[in-house]
Amino acid sequence: MTRATLLTITAPTGTPAEGDAGFALADFDAPQVRITDLSVTRGDGVFETIAVIDGHPQALEPHLARLAHSAQLLDLPEPAAAVWREAVAAGVRDYRERNGEAGSGELFAKLIYTRGVEGSGRPSGWIFVDEGEDFSAQRRGIRVVTLDRGLRHDVAESAPWLLAGAKTLSYAVNRAAQREAVRRGADDVIFLSSDGYALEGPTSNVILLADGVVRTPQTDQGILAGTTQAAVFAFFEERGLATEYREITADELRDADALWLVSSVRMAAPVTDLDGREYPVDAELTAELNRYLLSRTE
Amino acid sequence: MTRATLLTITAPTGTPAEGDAGFALADFDAPQVRITDLSVTRGDGVFETIAVIDGHPQALEPHLARLAHSAQLLDLPEPAAAVWREAVAAGVRDYRERNGEAGSGELFAKLIYTRGVEGSGRPSGWIFVDEGEDFSAQRRGIRVVTLDRGLRHDVAESAPWLLAGAKTLSYAVNRAAQREAVRRGADDVIFLSSDGYALEGPTSNVILLADGVVRTPQTDQGILAGTTQAAVFAFFEERGLATEYREITADELRDADALWLVSSVRMAAPVTDLDGREYPVDAELTAELNRYLLSRTE
Repeated sequence: MTRATLLTITAPTGTPAEGDAGFALADFDAPQVRITDLSVTRGDGVFETIAVIDGHPQALEPHLARLAHSAQLLDLPEPAAAVWREAVAAGVRDYRERNGEAGSGELFAKLIYTRGVEGSGRPSGWIFVDEGEDFSAQRRGIRVVTLDRGLRHDVAESAPWLLAGAKTLSYAVNRAAQREAVRRGADDVIFLSSDGYALEGPTSNVILLADGVVRTPQTDQGILAGTTQAAVFAFFEERGLATEYREITADELRDADALWLVSSVRMAAPVTDLDGREYPVDAELTAELNRYLLSRTE
Repeated sequence: MTRATLLTITAPTGTPAEGDAGFALADFDAPQVRITDLSVTRGDGVFETIAVIDGHPQALEPHLARLAHSAQLLDLPEPAAAVWREAVAAGVRDYRERNGEAGSGELFAKLIYTRGVEGSGRPSGWIFVDEGEDFSAQRRGIRVVTLDRGLRHDVAESAPWLLAGAKTLSYAVNRAAQREAVRRGADDVIFLSSDGYALEGPTSNVILLADGVVRTPQTDQGILAGTTQAAVFAFFEERGLATEYREITADELRDADALWLVSSVRMAAPVTDLDGREYPVDAELTAELNRYLLSRTE
Protein backbone atom coordinates (compact mmCIF):
# COMPACT_ATOMS: atom_id res chain seq x y z
CA MET A 1 0.00 0.00 0.00
CA THR A 2 1.29 3.43 -0.89
CA ARG A 3 1.46 6.19 1.68
CA ALA A 4 0.30 9.71 0.89
CA THR A 5 2.53 12.70 1.56
CA LEU A 6 1.10 15.67 3.42
CA LEU A 7 2.72 19.08 3.75
CA THR A 8 1.58 21.94 5.95
CA ILE A 9 2.18 25.26 4.22
CA THR A 10 3.55 27.35 7.06
CA ALA A 11 3.97 30.52 4.97
CA PRO A 12 1.03 30.35 2.52
CA THR A 13 1.06 34.06 1.71
CA GLY A 14 4.53 35.37 2.43
CA THR A 15 8.23 35.01 2.16
CA PRO A 16 9.36 32.40 4.67
CA ALA A 17 11.90 33.36 7.31
CA GLU A 18 15.59 32.70 6.58
CA GLY A 19 16.24 28.97 6.76
CA ASP A 20 12.53 28.10 6.59
CA ALA A 21 11.12 26.61 3.39
CA GLY A 22 7.61 27.86 4.10
CA PHE A 23 6.27 24.31 4.28
CA ALA A 24 6.90 21.21 6.35
CA LEU A 25 6.14 17.51 6.13
CA ALA A 26 3.20 16.45 8.29
CA ASP A 27 1.56 13.14 9.16
CA PHE A 28 -1.13 12.42 6.58
CA ASP A 29 -2.86 9.93 8.90
CA ALA A 30 -3.07 12.33 11.86
CA PRO A 31 -5.54 15.19 12.30
CA GLN A 32 -3.99 18.45 11.04
CA VAL A 33 -6.93 20.84 10.88
CA ARG A 34 -8.44 22.64 13.83
CA ILE A 35 -12.22 22.40 14.17
CA THR A 36 -12.52 26.20 13.88
CA ASP A 37 -10.54 26.38 10.66
CA LEU A 38 -13.00 28.11 8.34
CA SER A 39 -12.52 25.35 5.78
CA VAL A 40 -14.32 23.00 8.19
CA THR A 41 -17.03 25.31 9.48
CA ARG A 42 -17.73 27.36 6.32
CA GLY A 43 -16.08 25.70 3.32
CA ASP A 44 -14.25 29.01 3.18
CA GLY A 45 -11.20 28.46 1.04
CA VAL A 46 -10.04 27.39 -2.41
CA PHE A 47 -8.27 24.41 -3.91
CA GLU A 48 -6.57 22.96 -6.95
CA THR A 49 -5.97 19.36 -7.98
CA ILE A 50 -2.92 18.84 -10.17
CA ALA A 51 -2.06 15.65 -12.03
CA VAL A 52 1.47 14.38 -11.48
CA ILE A 53 2.64 12.05 -14.23
CA ASP A 54 6.01 10.29 -13.88
CA GLY A 55 6.95 12.88 -11.29
CA HIS A 56 5.95 15.92 -13.38
CA PRO A 57 3.18 18.17 -12.05
CA GLN A 58 1.11 19.05 -15.11
CA ALA A 59 0.12 22.64 -15.92
CA LEU A 60 1.54 23.72 -12.58
CA GLU A 61 1.71 27.41 -13.45
CA PRO A 62 -1.89 27.62 -14.76
CA HIS A 63 -3.04 25.79 -11.61
CA LEU A 64 -1.14 28.22 -9.37
CA ALA A 65 -2.57 31.15 -11.34
CA ARG A 66 -6.09 29.75 -10.92
CA LEU A 67 -5.52 29.23 -7.19
CA ALA A 68 -4.58 32.91 -6.95
CA HIS A 69 -7.62 33.91 -9.04
CA SER A 70 -9.98 31.88 -6.85
CA ALA A 71 -8.38 33.41 -3.75
CA GLN A 72 -8.95 36.88 -5.16
CA LEU A 73 -12.63 36.13 -5.81
CA LEU A 74 -12.90 35.15 -2.11
CA ASP A 75 -10.96 38.24 -0.90
CA LEU A 76 -8.22 35.98 0.45
CA PRO A 77 -4.64 37.25 0.52
CA GLU A 78 -2.65 36.31 -2.57
CA PRO A 79 -0.96 32.92 -2.10
CA ALA A 80 2.83 33.03 -2.36
CA ALA A 81 3.35 31.20 -5.65
CA ALA A 82 7.02 30.43 -4.96
CA VAL A 83 6.20 28.65 -1.70
CA TRP A 84 3.36 26.60 -3.17
CA ARG A 85 5.44 25.72 -6.27
CA GLU A 86 8.33 24.47 -4.13
CA ALA A 87 5.97 22.61 -1.83
CA VAL A 88 4.40 20.72 -4.74
CA ALA A 89 7.85 19.66 -5.90
CA ALA A 90 8.88 18.63 -2.38
CA GLY A 91 5.65 16.69 -1.87
CA VAL A 92 6.06 14.80 -5.11
CA ARG A 93 9.70 14.06 -4.33
CA ASP A 94 8.82 12.72 -0.89
CA TYR A 95 5.98 10.59 -2.19
CA ARG A 96 8.15 9.02 -4.87
CA GLU A 97 11.07 8.38 -2.54
CA ARG A 98 8.87 6.63 -0.02
CA ASN A 99 6.70 4.68 -2.44
CA GLY A 100 9.32 3.46 -4.94
CA GLU A 101 7.81 1.82 -8.01
CA ALA A 102 4.28 2.85 -6.97
CA GLY A 103 5.33 6.50 -7.12
CA SER A 104 6.03 6.39 -10.84
CA GLY A 105 2.46 6.17 -12.14
CA GLU A 106 -0.39 8.69 -12.07
CA LEU A 107 -0.38 10.78 -8.91
CA PHE A 108 -2.14 13.96 -7.96
CA ALA A 109 -1.28 16.90 -5.73
CA LYS A 110 -4.15 18.64 -3.98
CA LEU A 111 -3.58 22.22 -2.85
CA ILE A 112 -5.89 23.54 -0.11
CA TYR A 113 -5.78 27.20 0.89
CA THR A 114 -8.24 28.38 3.55
CA ARG A 115 -9.15 31.53 5.45
CA GLY A 116 -7.61 29.85 8.50
CA VAL A 117 -8.69 29.41 12.07
CA GLU A 118 -11.58 31.77 12.82
CA GLY A 119 -10.35 34.92 14.48
CA SER A 120 -6.67 34.26 13.75
CA GLY A 121 -6.54 36.36 10.59
CA ARG A 122 -3.98 33.88 9.23
CA PRO A 123 -4.80 31.66 6.24
CA SER A 124 -4.02 27.95 6.39
CA GLY A 125 -2.53 25.83 3.63
CA TRP A 126 -1.88 22.17 2.95
CA ILE A 127 -0.79 20.06 0.01
CA PHE A 128 -1.15 16.34 -0.21
CA VAL A 129 0.15 13.96 -2.82
CA ASP A 130 -1.39 10.59 -3.40
CA GLU A 131 -2.02 8.16 -6.21
CA GLY A 132 -5.03 8.77 -8.43
CA GLU A 133 -7.99 6.46 -8.80
CA ASP A 134 -8.06 4.09 -11.72
CA PHE A 135 -9.94 6.09 -14.35
CA SER A 136 -9.39 3.65 -17.21
CA ALA A 137 -13.08 2.72 -17.49
CA GLN A 138 -14.16 6.39 -17.48
CA ARG A 139 -11.58 7.17 -20.16
CA ARG A 140 -13.45 4.72 -22.39
CA GLY A 141 -16.89 6.21 -21.79
CA ILE A 142 -19.28 7.80 -19.28
CA ARG A 143 -23.02 8.33 -19.13
CA VAL A 144 -24.00 11.92 -18.35
CA VAL A 145 -27.15 13.82 -17.40
CA THR A 146 -27.74 17.56 -17.55
CA LEU A 147 -28.84 19.26 -14.33
CA ASP A 148 -29.93 22.82 -13.67
CA ARG A 149 -27.25 24.80 -11.81
CA GLY A 150 -29.99 27.25 -10.84
CA LEU A 151 -27.99 30.35 -11.78
CA ARG A 152 -28.11 32.46 -14.94
CA HIS A 153 -25.13 32.14 -17.28
CA ASP A 154 -24.08 35.77 -16.64
CA VAL A 155 -24.09 35.60 -12.84
CA ALA A 156 -20.31 35.87 -12.39
CA GLU A 157 -20.59 39.42 -13.63
CA SER A 158 -23.93 40.45 -12.12
CA ALA A 159 -23.49 38.85 -8.68
CA PRO A 160 -19.80 38.19 -7.92
CA TRP A 161 -20.62 37.28 -4.30
CA LEU A 162 -22.06 34.02 -5.63
CA LEU A 163 -18.44 33.04 -6.39
CA ALA A 164 -19.27 31.41 -9.72
CA GLY A 165 -15.93 30.68 -11.35
CA ALA A 166 -14.04 30.30 -8.07
CA LYS A 167 -12.82 26.81 -7.17
CA THR A 168 -13.96 26.93 -3.56
CA LEU A 169 -14.05 24.32 -0.81
CA SER A 170 -17.85 24.77 -0.74
CA TYR A 171 -18.54 21.87 -3.08
CA ALA A 172 -21.54 20.26 -1.36
CA VAL A 173 -23.77 21.09 -4.35
CA ASN A 174 -21.27 19.60 -6.80
CA ARG A 175 -21.28 16.40 -4.76
CA ALA A 176 -25.09 16.36 -4.49
CA ALA A 177 -25.36 16.75 -8.26
CA GLN A 178 -23.08 13.76 -8.75
CA ARG A 179 -25.25 11.69 -6.41
CA GLU A 180 -28.31 12.76 -8.41
CA ALA A 181 -26.57 11.59 -11.59
CA VAL A 182 -26.00 8.16 -10.02
CA ARG A 183 -29.67 8.03 -8.99
CA ARG A 184 -30.51 8.61 -12.65
CA GLY A 185 -28.25 5.77 -13.75
CA ALA A 186 -25.45 8.03 -14.98
CA ASP A 187 -21.84 8.66 -14.02
CA ASP A 188 -21.54 12.41 -14.20
CA VAL A 189 -23.26 15.74 -14.79
CA ILE A 190 -23.19 18.69 -17.15
CA PHE A 191 -24.66 21.74 -15.42
CA LEU A 192 -26.98 24.02 -17.39
CA SER A 193 -27.59 27.64 -16.47
CA SER A 194 -31.14 28.53 -15.47
CA ASP A 195 -31.44 30.32 -18.84
CA GLY A 196 -30.45 27.25 -20.81
CA TYR A 197 -26.73 27.40 -21.51
CA ALA A 198 -24.30 24.52 -21.10
CA LEU A 199 -21.78 25.32 -18.37
CA GLU A 200 -19.43 22.67 -16.95
CA GLY A 201 -19.38 19.45 -14.96
CA PRO A 202 -19.12 19.46 -11.16
CA THR A 203 -15.38 18.72 -11.50
CA SER A 204 -14.77 19.00 -15.24
CA ASN A 205 -15.05 21.12 -18.37
CA VAL A 206 -17.19 20.19 -21.36
CA ILE A 207 -15.70 19.78 -24.84
CA LEU A 208 -17.90 19.27 -27.86
CA LEU A 209 -17.25 18.57 -31.49
CA ALA A 210 -19.85 19.97 -33.90
CA ASP A 211 -19.63 21.16 -37.52
CA GLY A 212 -15.99 20.04 -37.45
CA VAL A 213 -15.19 22.62 -34.77
CA VAL A 214 -14.07 21.83 -31.20
CA ARG A 215 -15.88 24.05 -28.71
CA THR A 216 -16.14 24.69 -25.00
CA PRO A 217 -18.48 27.05 -23.14
CA GLN A 218 -16.84 30.44 -22.82
CA THR A 219 -15.42 30.98 -19.39
CA ASP A 220 -16.97 34.35 -18.53
CA GLN A 221 -20.12 32.44 -17.51
CA GLY A 222 -18.92 31.55 -14.04
CA ILE A 223 -17.09 28.53 -15.37
CA LEU A 224 -13.67 27.49 -14.17
CA ALA A 225 -11.09 28.09 -16.89
CA GLY A 226 -9.88 24.53 -17.37
CA THR A 227 -6.19 23.76 -17.42
CA THR A 228 -6.86 20.42 -19.13
CA GLN A 229 -9.37 21.99 -21.49
CA ALA A 230 -6.59 24.27 -22.77
CA ALA A 231 -4.42 21.22 -23.48
CA VAL A 232 -7.32 19.51 -25.27
CA PHE A 233 -7.65 22.54 -27.54
CA ALA A 234 -3.91 22.35 -28.28
CA PHE A 235 -4.29 18.67 -29.18
CA PHE A 236 -7.07 19.34 -31.68
CA GLU A 237 -5.38 22.42 -33.12
CA GLU A 238 -2.25 20.34 -33.81
CA ARG A 239 -4.55 18.08 -35.81
CA GLY A 240 -5.85 21.01 -37.87
CA LEU A 241 -9.25 21.46 -36.22
CA ALA A 242 -10.59 24.88 -35.34
CA THR A 243 -11.34 25.53 -31.65
CA GLU A 244 -13.73 28.04 -30.19
CA TYR A 245 -14.93 29.41 -26.85
CA ARG A 246 -18.53 30.53 -27.03
CA GLU A 247 -21.93 30.36 -25.41
CA ILE A 248 -23.45 26.96 -26.09
CA THR A 249 -27.14 26.33 -25.65
CA ALA A 250 -28.49 23.11 -24.20
CA ASP A 251 -29.79 22.22 -27.66
CA GLU A 252 -26.37 22.75 -29.25
CA LEU A 253 -24.90 20.55 -26.54
CA ARG A 254 -27.32 17.72 -27.28
CA ASP A 255 -26.84 18.08 -31.05
CA ALA A 256 -23.05 17.73 -30.81
CA ASP A 257 -21.33 15.02 -32.83
CA ALA A 258 -19.11 14.09 -29.90
CA LEU A 259 -18.70 15.17 -26.27
CA TRP A 260 -16.00 14.83 -23.61
CA LEU A 261 -15.72 15.84 -19.99
CA VAL A 262 -12.12 16.79 -19.27
CA SER A 263 -10.38 17.37 -15.96
CA SER A 264 -6.91 17.35 -14.47
CA VAL A 265 -6.69 13.86 -13.06
CA ARG A 266 -9.31 11.87 -14.99
CA MET A 267 -8.17 13.52 -18.24
CA ALA A 268 -10.67 13.06 -21.14
CA ALA A 269 -13.81 10.99 -20.58
CA PRO A 270 -15.91 10.55 -23.74
CA VAL A 271 -19.68 10.81 -23.29
CA THR A 272 -21.52 7.74 -24.52
CA ASP A 273 -24.97 8.90 -23.42
CA LEU A 274 -26.39 12.32 -22.54
CA ASP A 275 -29.88 12.40 -21.02
CA GLY A 276 -30.61 9.07 -22.71
CA ARG A 277 -29.35 10.04 -26.18
CA GLU A 278 -26.44 7.91 -27.35
CA TYR A 279 -23.26 9.29 -28.86
CA PRO A 280 -20.75 7.35 -30.91
CA VAL A 281 -17.29 7.31 -29.34
CA ASP A 282 -14.19 7.41 -31.52
CA ALA A 283 -12.21 5.17 -29.19
CA GLU A 284 -8.97 5.63 -31.08
CA LEU A 285 -9.19 9.42 -31.10
CA THR A 286 -9.99 9.51 -27.38
CA ALA A 287 -7.14 7.13 -26.57
CA GLU A 288 -4.79 9.34 -28.59
CA LEU A 289 -6.10 12.43 -26.80
CA ASN A 290 -5.51 10.79 -23.41
CA ARG A 291 -2.02 9.68 -24.39
CA TYR A 292 -1.35 13.29 -25.37
CA LEU A 293 -2.73 14.62 -22.06
CA LEU A 294 -0.78 12.04 -20.04
CA SER A 295 2.47 12.79 -21.87
CA ARG A 296 2.63 16.45 -20.84
CA THR A 297 5.69 17.09 -18.72
CA GLU A 298 4.89 20.63 -17.66
CA MET B 1 -9.84 34.08 29.23
CA THR B 2 -12.41 31.33 28.89
CA ARG B 3 -11.55 28.01 27.35
CA ALA B 4 -13.82 26.37 24.79
CA THR B 5 -14.95 22.77 25.17
CA LEU B 6 -14.63 20.39 22.24
CA LEU B 7 -16.20 16.97 21.96
CA THR B 8 -15.56 14.40 19.28
CA ILE B 9 -18.74 12.51 18.47
CA THR B 10 -17.48 8.94 18.24
CA ALA B 11 -20.87 7.42 17.41
CA PRO B 12 -22.58 10.13 15.32
CA THR B 13 -25.08 7.77 13.70
CA GLY B 14 -25.48 4.81 15.98
CA THR B 15 -25.97 3.39 19.40
CA PRO B 16 -22.64 3.55 21.23
CA ALA B 17 -21.13 0.35 22.57
CA GLU B 18 -21.87 -0.60 26.18
CA GLY B 19 -19.96 1.73 28.49
CA ASP B 20 -19.26 4.24 25.71
CA ALA B 21 -21.15 7.54 25.72
CA GLY B 22 -20.73 8.00 21.95
CA PHE B 23 -18.70 11.16 22.46
CA ALA B 24 -15.46 12.12 24.17
CA LEU B 25 -13.75 15.31 25.30
CA ALA B 26 -11.05 16.50 22.93
CA ASP B 27 -8.48 19.29 22.95
CA PHE B 28 -10.07 22.38 21.35
CA ASP B 29 -6.66 23.92 20.68
CA ALA B 30 -5.24 20.87 18.91
CA PRO B 31 -5.99 19.78 15.35
CA GLN B 32 -8.83 17.25 15.32
CA VAL B 33 -9.81 16.99 11.66
CA ARG B 34 -7.95 15.01 9.02
CA ILE B 35 -7.11 16.86 5.83
CA THR B 36 -9.18 14.38 3.79
CA ASP B 37 -12.29 14.80 5.92
CA LEU B 38 -14.87 15.84 3.33
CA SER B 39 -15.79 18.85 5.47
CA VAL B 40 -12.36 20.30 4.64
CA THR B 41 -12.08 19.31 1.00
CA ARG B 42 -15.72 19.66 -0.10
CA GLY B 43 -17.69 21.51 2.58
CA ASP B 44 -19.62 18.24 2.63
CA GLY B 45 -21.56 18.20 5.86
CA VAL B 46 -24.16 20.05 7.91
CA PHE B 47 -24.19 22.07 11.09
CA GLU B 48 -26.30 23.75 13.75
CA THR B 49 -25.51 26.58 16.13
CA ILE B 50 -27.49 26.54 19.37
CA ALA B 51 -27.65 29.33 21.91
CA VAL B 52 -26.95 28.27 25.49
CA ILE B 53 -28.33 30.71 28.05
CA ASP B 54 -27.54 30.18 31.74
CA GLY B 55 -26.67 26.60 30.91
CA HIS B 56 -29.86 25.85 28.93
CA PRO B 57 -29.49 24.93 25.26
CA GLN B 58 -32.34 26.77 23.54
CA ALA B 59 -34.65 25.01 21.08
CA LEU B 60 -32.46 21.92 21.27
CA GLU B 61 -35.04 19.57 19.79
CA PRO B 62 -35.86 21.81 16.79
CA HIS B 63 -32.12 22.19 16.17
CA LEU B 64 -31.60 18.42 16.32
CA ALA B 65 -34.55 17.92 13.98
CA ARG B 66 -33.11 20.45 11.54
CA LEU B 67 -29.70 18.76 11.70
CA ALA B 68 -31.40 15.50 10.72
CA HIS B 69 -33.34 17.25 7.94
CA SER B 70 -30.19 18.85 6.53
CA ALA B 71 -28.44 15.49 6.70
CA GLN B 72 -31.29 13.89 4.78
CA LEU B 73 -31.07 16.55 2.04
CA LEU B 74 -27.38 15.63 1.70
CA ASP B 75 -28.04 11.85 1.72
CA LEU B 76 -26.09 11.52 4.96
CA PRO B 77 -27.05 8.81 7.45
CA GLU B 78 -29.48 10.00 10.10
CA PRO B 79 -27.62 11.44 13.09
CA ALA B 80 -28.32 9.62 16.37
CA ALA B 81 -30.33 12.29 18.19
CA ALA B 82 -29.78 10.73 21.62
CA VAL B 83 -25.99 10.86 21.26
CA TRP B 84 -25.94 14.45 19.99
CA ARG B 85 -28.42 15.56 22.69
CA GLU B 86 -26.29 14.04 25.47
CA ALA B 87 -23.13 15.46 23.97
CA VAL B 88 -24.54 19.00 23.95
CA ALA B 89 -25.42 18.65 27.63
CA ALA B 90 -22.00 17.23 28.46
CA GLY B 91 -20.22 19.97 26.51
CA VAL B 92 -22.16 22.71 28.26
CA ARG B 93 -21.52 21.09 31.65
CA ASP B 94 -17.80 20.85 30.99
CA TYR B 95 -17.56 24.42 29.75
CA ARG B 96 -19.36 25.81 32.78
CA GLU B 97 -17.37 23.72 35.24
CA ARG B 98 -14.08 24.87 33.81
CA ASN B 99 -14.97 28.52 33.24
CA GLY B 100 -16.82 29.34 36.45
CA GLU B 101 -18.51 32.74 36.42
CA ALA B 102 -17.71 33.20 32.72
CA GLY B 103 -19.76 30.10 31.92
CA SER B 104 -22.99 31.60 33.14
CA GLY B 105 -23.61 34.12 30.35
CA GLU B 106 -24.47 33.61 26.69
CA LEU B 107 -22.75 30.58 25.20
CA PHE B 108 -23.29 28.66 22.02
CA ALA B 109 -22.89 25.03 21.02
CA LYS B 110 -21.90 24.33 17.43
CA LEU B 111 -22.73 20.88 16.03
CA ILE B 112 -20.76 19.74 12.98
CA TYR B 113 -21.68 16.53 11.17
CA THR B 114 -19.68 15.60 8.07
CA ARG B 115 -19.49 12.85 5.48
CA GLY B 116 -16.21 11.88 7.14
CA VAL B 117 -12.77 11.01 5.87
CA GLU B 118 -12.95 10.35 2.14
CA GLY B 119 -13.18 6.65 1.43
CA SER B 120 -13.91 5.68 5.05
CA GLY B 121 -17.68 5.59 4.65
CA ARG B 122 -17.93 6.79 8.26
CA PRO B 123 -19.35 10.25 9.06
CA SER B 124 -17.50 12.51 11.50
CA GLY B 125 -19.02 14.65 14.21
CA TRP B 126 -17.88 17.34 16.62
CA ILE B 127 -19.52 19.73 19.04
CA PHE B 128 -17.84 22.74 20.52
CA VAL B 129 -19.09 25.10 23.19
CA ASP B 130 -17.78 28.62 23.56
CA GLU B 131 -18.96 32.03 24.62
CA GLY B 132 -20.84 34.08 22.06
CA GLU B 133 -19.69 37.40 20.65
CA ASP B 134 -21.05 40.56 22.19
CA PHE B 135 -24.10 41.29 20.03
CA SER B 136 -25.45 44.16 22.11
CA ALA B 137 -24.80 46.76 19.39
CA GLN B 138 -26.46 44.61 16.70
CA ARG B 139 -29.45 44.05 18.97
CA ARG B 140 -29.96 47.83 18.87
CA GLY B 141 -29.80 48.12 15.08
CA ILE B 142 -28.14 46.93 11.88
CA ARG B 143 -27.83 48.29 8.37
CA VAL B 144 -28.80 45.78 5.69
CA VAL B 145 -28.55 45.46 1.91
CA THR B 146 -30.45 43.10 -0.35
CA LEU B 147 -28.37 40.87 -2.62
CA ASP B 148 -29.43 38.48 -5.36
CA ARG B 149 -29.09 34.83 -4.27
CA GLY B 150 -29.14 33.91 -7.96
CA LEU B 151 -31.69 31.12 -7.56
CA ARG B 152 -35.43 31.13 -8.20
CA HIS B 153 -37.62 31.02 -5.09
CA ASP B 154 -38.96 27.56 -6.00
CA VAL B 155 -35.61 25.88 -6.53
CA ALA B 156 -35.77 23.62 -3.45
CA GLU B 157 -38.54 21.73 -5.18
CA SER B 158 -37.37 21.93 -8.81
CA ALA B 159 -33.67 21.23 -8.20
CA PRO B 160 -33.10 19.54 -4.83
CA TRP B 161 -29.43 18.88 -5.66
CA LEU B 162 -28.82 22.61 -5.15
CA LEU B 163 -29.41 21.91 -1.42
CA ALA B 164 -31.39 25.10 -0.84
CA GLY B 165 -32.83 24.79 2.65
CA ALA B 166 -30.01 22.58 3.95
CA LYS B 167 -27.68 24.09 6.53
CA THR B 168 -24.48 22.84 4.92
CA LEU B 169 -20.82 23.48 5.67
CA SER B 170 -20.55 24.99 2.15
CA TYR B 171 -21.08 28.56 3.30
CA ALA B 172 -18.46 30.38 1.20
CA VAL B 173 -21.20 32.27 -0.67
CA ASN B 174 -22.87 33.33 2.59
CA ARG B 175 -19.55 34.70 3.79
CA ALA B 176 -18.86 36.45 0.47
CA ALA B 177 -22.28 38.10 0.62
CA GLN B 178 -21.52 39.41 4.10
CA ARG B 179 -18.22 40.89 2.86
CA GLU B 180 -20.14 42.53 -0.01
CA ALA B 181 -22.50 44.06 2.55
CA VAL B 182 -19.54 45.54 4.43
CA ARG B 183 -18.15 46.93 1.16
CA ARG B 184 -21.52 48.65 0.74
CA GLY B 185 -21.34 50.14 4.22
CA ALA B 186 -23.83 47.72 5.75
CA ASP B 187 -23.72 45.04 8.44
CA ASP B 188 -25.74 42.24 6.94
CA VAL B 189 -27.66 40.91 3.95
CA ILE B 190 -31.16 39.85 2.98
CA PHE B 191 -31.01 37.53 -0.01
CA LEU B 192 -33.56 37.93 -2.80
CA SER B 193 -34.45 35.14 -5.19
CA SER B 194 -33.63 35.75 -8.86
CA ASP B 195 -37.37 36.19 -9.44
CA GLY B 196 -37.73 38.89 -6.82
CA TYR B 197 -38.80 37.30 -3.54
CA ALA B 198 -37.30 38.03 -0.13
CA LEU B 199 -35.62 34.90 1.23
CA GLU B 200 -33.37 35.02 4.30
CA GLY B 201 -30.07 36.40 5.57
CA PRO B 202 -26.83 34.44 5.19
CA THR B 203 -27.18 33.33 8.83
CA SER B 204 -30.62 34.60 9.82
CA ASN B 205 -34.33 34.70 9.07
CA VAL B 206 -36.23 37.83 8.10
CA ILE B 207 -39.20 39.07 10.14
CA LEU B 208 -41.32 41.96 8.94
CA LEU B 209 -44.18 43.88 10.40
CA ALA B 210 -46.66 45.28 7.87
CA ASP B 211 -50.39 46.03 8.05
CA GLY B 212 -50.19 45.04 11.73
CA VAL B 213 -49.22 41.48 10.78
CA VAL B 214 -45.89 39.81 11.57
CA ARG B 215 -44.62 37.88 8.56
CA THR B 216 -41.68 35.77 7.46
CA PRO B 217 -40.98 34.30 4.01
CA GLN B 218 -42.53 30.88 3.76
CA THR B 219 -39.99 28.15 4.21
CA ASP B 220 -40.72 26.04 1.12
CA GLN B 221 -38.57 28.49 -0.85
CA GLY B 222 -35.24 26.89 0.06
CA ILE B 223 -35.15 28.83 3.30
CA LEU B 224 -33.99 27.36 6.58
CA ALA B 225 -36.90 26.97 8.94
CA GLY B 226 -35.73 29.20 11.75
CA THR B 227 -35.80 27.98 15.32
CA THR B 228 -35.58 31.57 16.60
CA GLN B 229 -38.12 32.77 14.05
CA ALA B 230 -40.62 30.35 15.57
CA ALA B 231 -40.00 31.87 19.01
CA VAL B 232 -40.38 35.38 17.59
CA PHE B 233 -43.79 34.42 16.21
CA ALA B 234 -44.76 33.08 19.65
CA PHE B 235 -43.70 36.38 21.24
CA PHE B 236 -45.88 38.45 18.90
CA GLU B 237 -48.81 36.05 19.10
CA GLU B 238 -48.77 36.37 22.90
CA ARG B 239 -49.12 40.13 22.31
CA GLY B 240 -52.17 39.60 20.10
CA LEU B 241 -50.58 40.11 16.70
CA ALA B 242 -51.34 37.85 13.77
CA THR B 243 -48.40 35.97 12.24
CA GLU B 244 -48.10 34.62 8.75
CA TYR B 245 -45.74 32.60 6.53
CA ARG B 246 -46.02 33.64 2.92
CA GLU B 247 -44.17 34.65 -0.22
CA ILE B 248 -42.94 38.19 0.21
CA THR B 249 -41.82 40.24 -2.76
CA ALA B 250 -38.83 42.57 -2.62
CA ASP B 251 -41.25 45.51 -2.78
CA GLU B 252 -43.26 44.21 0.17
CA LEU B 253 -40.01 43.81 2.07
CA ARG B 254 -38.99 47.40 1.43
CA ASP B 255 -42.48 48.70 2.27
CA ALA B 256 -42.54 47.00 5.70
CA ASP B 257 -43.15 49.12 8.79
CA ALA B 258 -40.40 47.31 10.70
CA LEU B 259 -37.85 44.60 9.96
CA TRP B 260 -35.68 42.26 12.05
CA LEU B 261 -33.08 39.65 11.26
CA VAL B 262 -33.31 36.85 13.80
CA SER B 263 -30.94 34.01 14.52
CA SER B 264 -30.04 31.61 17.28
CA VAL B 265 -27.15 33.39 18.95
CA ARG B 266 -27.53 37.04 17.91
CA MET B 267 -31.29 36.83 18.63
CA ALA B 268 -33.28 39.75 17.11
CA ALA B 269 -31.43 42.55 15.32
CA PRO B 270 -33.71 45.41 14.18
CA VAL B 271 -33.03 46.82 10.72
CA THR B 272 -32.38 50.57 10.78
CA ASP B 273 -31.60 50.87 7.07
CA LEU B 274 -32.35 48.65 4.08
CA ASP B 275 -30.69 49.58 0.78
CA GLY B 276 -30.45 53.18 2.00
CA ARG B 277 -34.05 53.48 3.17
CA GLU B 278 -34.38 54.18 6.89
CA TYR B 279 -36.71 52.34 9.23
CA PRO B 280 -37.80 53.53 12.64
CA VAL B 281 -36.83 51.10 15.41
CA ASP B 282 -39.11 50.54 18.37
CA ALA B 283 -36.24 50.12 20.80
CA GLU B 284 -38.47 49.10 23.69
CA LEU B 285 -40.30 46.44 21.69
CA THR B 286 -37.03 45.01 20.37
CA ALA B 287 -35.50 44.97 23.85
CA GLU B 288 -38.57 43.18 25.15
CA LEU B 289 -38.37 40.70 22.26
CA ASN B 290 -34.72 39.99 23.02
CA ARG B 291 -35.44 39.56 26.74
CA TYR B 292 -38.12 37.05 25.73
CA LEU B 293 -35.75 35.20 23.41
CA LEU B 294 -32.96 35.16 25.99
CA SER B 295 -35.26 33.90 28.73
CA ARG B 296 -36.18 30.66 26.98
CA THR B 297 -35.02 27.69 29.01
CA GLU B 298 -35.74 24.99 26.44
